[in-house]
Amino acid sequence: MPTTATSSSAPSSLAGSKRIFNFSAGPAVLPEDVIRQAQKDLWSIFDSGIGIMEHSHRGKAFDRVIAEAEADCRAIGNVPDDYEVLFLQGGATLQFAMIPMSFLPAGATADYIDTGVWTTKAIKEAKLFGNVNVAFDGSACSYDHTPTSGELKLTDGAAYCHYCSNNTIYGTRFETPPATSAPLIVDASSEMYSRPIDVGAHAMIYAGAQKNLGPSGVVLVIIRKDLMESARAGLPVMLDYKKQAAKGSRLNTPPTFGIYVMGQVFKWILGQGGLKAVAQANEAKARIVYDAIMGSGDFYAPVARPECRSRMNIPFRTGTPELDAKFISEALEHGMSGLKGHRDVGGLRASIYNAFPAAGCTALAEFMKDFAQRNG
Amino acid sequence: MPTTATSSSAPSSLAGSKRIFNFSAGPAVLPEDVIRQAQKDLWSIFDSGIGIMEHSHRGKAFDRVIAEAEADCRAIGNVPDDYEVLFLQGGATLQFAMIPMSFLPAGATADYIDTGVWTTKAIKEAKLFGNVNVAFDGSACSYDHTPTSGELKLTDGAAYCHYCSNNTIYGTRFETPPATSAPLIVDASSEMYSRPIDVGAHAMIYAGAQKNLGPSGVVLVIIRKDLMESARAGLPVMLDYKKQAAKGSRLNTPPTFGIYVMGQVFKWILGQGGLKAVAQANEAKARIVYDAIMGSGDFYAPVARPECRSRMNIPFRTGTPELDAKFISEALEHGMSGLKGHRDVGGLRASIYNAFPAAGCTALAEFMKDFAQRNG
Repeated sequence: MPTTATSSSAPSSLAGSKRIFNFSAGPAVLPEDVIRQAQKDLWSIFDSGIGIMEHSHRGKAFDRVIAEAEADCRAIGNVPDDYEVLFLQGGATLQFAMIPMSFLPAGATADYIDTGVWTTKAIKEAKLFGNVNVAFDGSACSYDHTPTSGELKLTDGAAYCHYCSNNTIYGTRFETPPATSAPLIVDASSEMYSRPIDVGAHAMIYAGAQKNLGPSGVVLVIIRKDLMESARAGLPVMLDYKKQAAKGSRLNTPPTFGIYVMGQVFKWILGQGGLKAVAQANEAKARIVYDAIMGSGDFYAPVARPECRSRMNIPFRTGTPELDAKFISEALEHGMSGLKGHRDVGGLRASIYNAFPAAGCTALAEFMKDFAQRNG
Repeated sequence: MPTTATSSSAPSSLAGSKRIFNFSAGPAVLPEDVIRQAQKDLWSIFDSGIGIMEHSHRGKAFDRVIAEAEADCRAIGNVPDDYEVLFLQGGATLQFAMIPMSFLPAGATADYIDTGVWTTKAIKEAKLFGNVNVAFDGSACSYDHTPTSGELKLTDGAAYCHYCSNNTIYGTRFETPPATSAPLIVDASSEMYSRPIDVGAHAMIYAGAQKNLGPSGVVLVIIRKDLMESARAGLPVMLDYKKQAAKGSRLNTPPTFGIYVMGQVFKWILGQGGLKAVAQANEAKARIVYDAIMGSGDFYAPVARPECRSRMNIPFRTGTPELDAKFISEALEHGMSGLKGHRDVGGLRASIYNAFPAAGCTALAEFMKDFAQRNG
């Protein structure tokens, strides 16, 4: 059984100094219990006399770390046995290349649903390797929504269909996975394990860790074995899912500290009660912020359409770039950081991942109300 | 000017518990001052109220972290301005593929000097992309030495020449870089910044961090701009040195914590007095262990020939596998871990990287003497 990350009584000189509300889109806020545990384990983990960064990736301590991380990942997502769980490097961006390199044979076509910057990048990489059908092009509507099934132009016999379940920049998400008969591949980076996920509906799920799962430098890949087995042969070993799986993500020295932190975050999620409980908390947090936007008269305007709003990333705007800048600056003085919108959208954005506390949403809502009154 | 990592007075509950001598070949021991600083900065760095893992890779805090890491790296190695310093992912193993993918055009030949497991792996990857000339095959002598210039069969007009300056498994090293007119590329993973390095003699230097530079998950690449500019076009963005350099190693979210720790290790090296001082300390440490081997009569036998012995990795053997196993087990009881030799060589191995304390070498030497007396 997975154990829960121990809440510690870290001395005030290390863990008691003031922390602020961190609305960063990623790397992003982590659970404080996880940070406290990491502080201890950096010095010596499992009473081994050796810190977590300093253990051999082939020794008993790291055997335990990676085995628990995988087991907890499987427990949280109810991952079926015919899926591999891999911890890889290079972020989602290297997955953008590895996927078509592996699964888009010459002459075949892959469907890509373009809901913004990240899927646009994925499409560009895929075109290096094969034919791409853009099944939905969100640029016409400034990516303000994810497509309904009626908006999708899918390919018969597509090699696979790729989508991004939550769009960090535009604050949109898919309520349910798109319907397709092709193997479905999802970039879930900015919402992984923030709500229940139907693993069985996907042939592959991948997520850079640095939003909901841990520090940057690790990407979680959950891949169905039959898709994995179909990969093109003759790839460099680091880009070969089969070889990575055969070595249990230890084909070379993996990012051991990142996998350790991800494992601690998994324990924290289990300690919160799993994905249903986490999703419930995230619903409540997003409601606080959206209520502040929608209740402001027209002072704040949301970016995403109501039917597909992300609970993780909430982009919005005041009336002018000058007022947006003033908002960001004053919010920082009130202990709220990272509220600047992505440069492609401008305005403001509150990223409120799993580890972001509800108190921070309340503080933001109160500040928003006050700011609107003073500047409305 | 680079600042020095602050030595802290971390409370005993976090940083005062017993640590043992960690002879691991990698991931490996890190300076305790660096670990103490990391413990603090995990919670809040630069009094920002946000931990180092949680800062945006595009924010001011990480701007400072990566700028200092690069500046300190350049200061330590006296890196000329016509070289880029990159912090990449995928370890040395992904470099094994990226190098030929980028710099081995169709029809050209690259020279590879095979001094053991890691260069053998590099050769295998290079053969996926082009012609390889094995300029030296160390397998005939069980990799017990690095080649003299007379042993090298180099190619006229080779695209590049690749070697590994320190061989972790066999405990050999090159005293000086091999002489070639081709662009010289070195895998310096297990000895990077353990002694002065002639950057100008190389077109490219790369090193996985997890031996001398930090945690696993970051690879340091120092590459001359003219070589970089010659790279093949049309590669996936993550595998494109030019695109990585153009974005200052932030093409996607880099491994921010790993880069931070590497930066702290650079500050620690500068605080030690730079590479000459570090090399002097490493010479003294290696002498303690080799003296214990050579002074044992025939009880312990070294693996590497005298003229090319690594100061970082010292493989040796007792007479039998049973006695080796007894040695490892008893050493662990004496607070010395990680002394098992690599499975390809067997026996014993002491890895004593920059951060490994001289006191650990003395403790090992004393134990070796005692063990020999009891079992000789």
